[in-house]
Amino acid sequence: MQRSLTIALDMMGGDYGPRSSIPAAVEAVHLHNSLTLILCGNETLIEEQLSRLDALQHPRLKIKHCTQIVTNADEPAYALRNKKDASMRVALDLVKSGEAQACVSSGNTGALFAIAHYVLKMLPGIKRPALISTVPTQTKRPVYLLDLGANVHCDAHTLYQFGIMGTVVAREAQDIEYPKVSLLNIGSEDIKGHEGIKAAAKLMSSCNTINYTGYSEGSDIFSGKADVIVCEGFVGNVALKTCEGIAKLIMHKMTKALKKHLLYRGLALLLMPVIKKIYKKVNPDQYNGASLVGLRGIVVKSHGNASASAFLAAINEAVKEVQRQLPEKIQAAFAENEPTPDTSAENS
Amino acid sequence: MQRSLTIALDMMGGDYGPRSSIPAAVEAVHLHNSLTLILCGNETLIEEQLSRLDALQHPRLKIKHCTQIVTNADEPAYALRNKKDASMRVALDLVKSGEAQACVSSGNTGALFAIAHYVLKMLPGIKRPALISTVPTQTKRPVYLLDLGANVHCDAHTLYQFGIMGTVVAREAQDIEYPKVSLLNIGSEDIKGHEGIKAAAKLMSSCNTINYTGYSEGSDIFSGKADVIVCEGFVGNVALKTCEGIAKLIMHKMTKALKKHLLYRGLALLLMPVIKKIYKKVNPDQYNGASLVGLRGIVVKSHGNASASAFLAAINEAVKEVQRQLPEKIQAAFAENEPTPDTSAENS
Repeated sequence: MQRSLTIALDMMGGDYGPRSSIPAAVEAVHLHNSLTLILCGNETLIEEQLSRLDALQHPRLKIKHCTQIVTNADEPAYALRNKKDASMRVALDLVKSGEAQACVSSGNTGALFAIAHYVLKMLPGIKRPALISTVPTQTKRPVYLLDLGANVHCDAHTLYQFGIMGTVVAREAQDIEYPKVSLLNIGSEDIKGHEGIKAAAKLMSSCNTINYTGYSEGSDIFSGKADVIVCEGFVGNVALKTCEGIAKLIMHKMTKALKKHLLYRGLALLLMPVIKKIYKKVNPDQYNGASLVGLRGIVVKSHGNASASAFLAAINEAVKEVQRQLPEKIQAAFAENEPTPDTSAENS
Repeated sequence: MQRSLTIALDMMGGDYGPRSSIPAAVEAVHLHNSLTLILCGNETLIEEQLSRLDALQHPRLKIKHCTQIVTNADEPAYALRNKKDASMRVALDLVKSGEAQACVSSGNTGALFAIAHYVLKMLPGIKRPALISTVPTQTKRPVYLLDLGANVHCDAHTLYQFGIMGTVVAREAQDIEYPKVSLLNIGSEDIKGHEGIKAAAKLMSSCNTINYTGYSEGSDIFSGKADVIVCEGFVGNVALKTCEGIAKLIMHKMTKALKKHLLYRGLALLLMPVIKKIYKKVNPDQYNGASLVGLRGIVVKSHGNASASAFLAAINEAVKEVQRQLPEKIQAAFAENEPTPDTSAENS
């Protein structure tokens, strides 16, 4: 890592708060020697965890005391209006003011989405932000799936814009010149999707930035035939969480089957590391962060019951996005394709 | 099996046609000694396969020659209008006329749906038919998932009706008095679903037939916390096919990991049967049939690239549905809940 960079962390989110976010922060400054972290949250709790790890005096770990916490029970609109000194809000404000180049949180997704949208605003010409993450495939490269739940329903133009954003993210992260973009649809032998998807396919086909390669079905997600798969948030969220569920089920059935026979019980001990490694890989929601793209700033969301290693993975993702200058690259792609002067009226 | 029964089979559907449907039919009449099958399709091809299995003279295998085939490339409307002597259409006509009590096909889903809807019509008071199938869970009982793609989008009232149909199917098949019904939604900590789902939840809560237990996320599908999960067809189709895809991915990764080390290579041989069994279980689309419910007749859809054993499973499912008198039970449940005189105007 060359340039020095600063990331604001919401220390109070997720099921474990500072107990998982502090070990991750300490590890992150060890890994990246020009990284400074601003730890937003309750000063007492943060100091307690820091001193446990002998990191209270670390010069690149700075505490920003906040008096409020956004809980999982908070409605997004309520959190936005009433929690202006919450760790999540303060971390986003630091990105807005330029004191930090990115924000990482494992807190309430709906609130994070609403506050980030309000504080950071959209990049010019972009209608809606999207939550994007990778899913493993049978090839060496993962596939980028968006939207994962930031927008329940999406019109054709929004899906098309997600195609551009997904292209930029995959291109920058995976170093692919023309990432293959696909729209998630139901089987071509079934009723062939709704009008919105057909219209999005048309828009994508006629866009120079997007290497549109047709529809994918749910079963194609993991085949590696596409680098980016676009769908509306409801569908993407269900698909991602279905992966999580089925991976858990397979683990459960496999463990049970292996333990059933004495012969297999011995094998199970040998095989468990292999099975667990695969489980981690197919359970991306848990182990990678998801990024909110389309905003004038970098926001990475870690899973709500993220461990320290998952929170660290989210910090690492934020570091990479800063280095890749992701918002600037997205903005440049939109300037080429949709040279709208400004749509800030839409972004309020 | 007590009562004699007759089922019409579309022999020409799927990727293998009579090559998989004939062995399944022969096996089915061996299994069920009061079952008669009407084999709809090309007489020459059917006879060829039957004679291979020495079953040409079987008294309970009757051939109904058809001159047309619905292909996977056929648009549903085209097949409906122009393929009146196709094996699929003839099999459904036999159900309509009462000569058969159920129909099984592995052909073009969209066409099967459109022709079944047109030929058989809806049961009184039901707005839309749904495609329903089971998905395995961590408990001994599977969960019934509907709709799996018969209806891309569904309004609240349709989702509510699916709740009633799912209840009847699970009650009759699993012998549960009050199956737990859930609506598939995106995480409660996210933006909490759309208005249609909230309205459906309200309708389900106030219905005596439905034991409504709240929302499920994608990750909950396999936990067994619900017996029936309701969603619109687009989402259900993606969820089911995602299962298929991730199961394939896990198989792929596991096989690769096991083959990597000499030690594991030996274990792999021992474990493959266990892994394959689990794969079959978590890949329900492939191994069970899906049923089209809400119609005045029983229609079971087998997977397009179904093997003989999968087609046999679909025939077995049809036999059970006839024995359970599923359409009559669904009709009775609707008569209790929605005593609409008739909505045949809607069903055209």
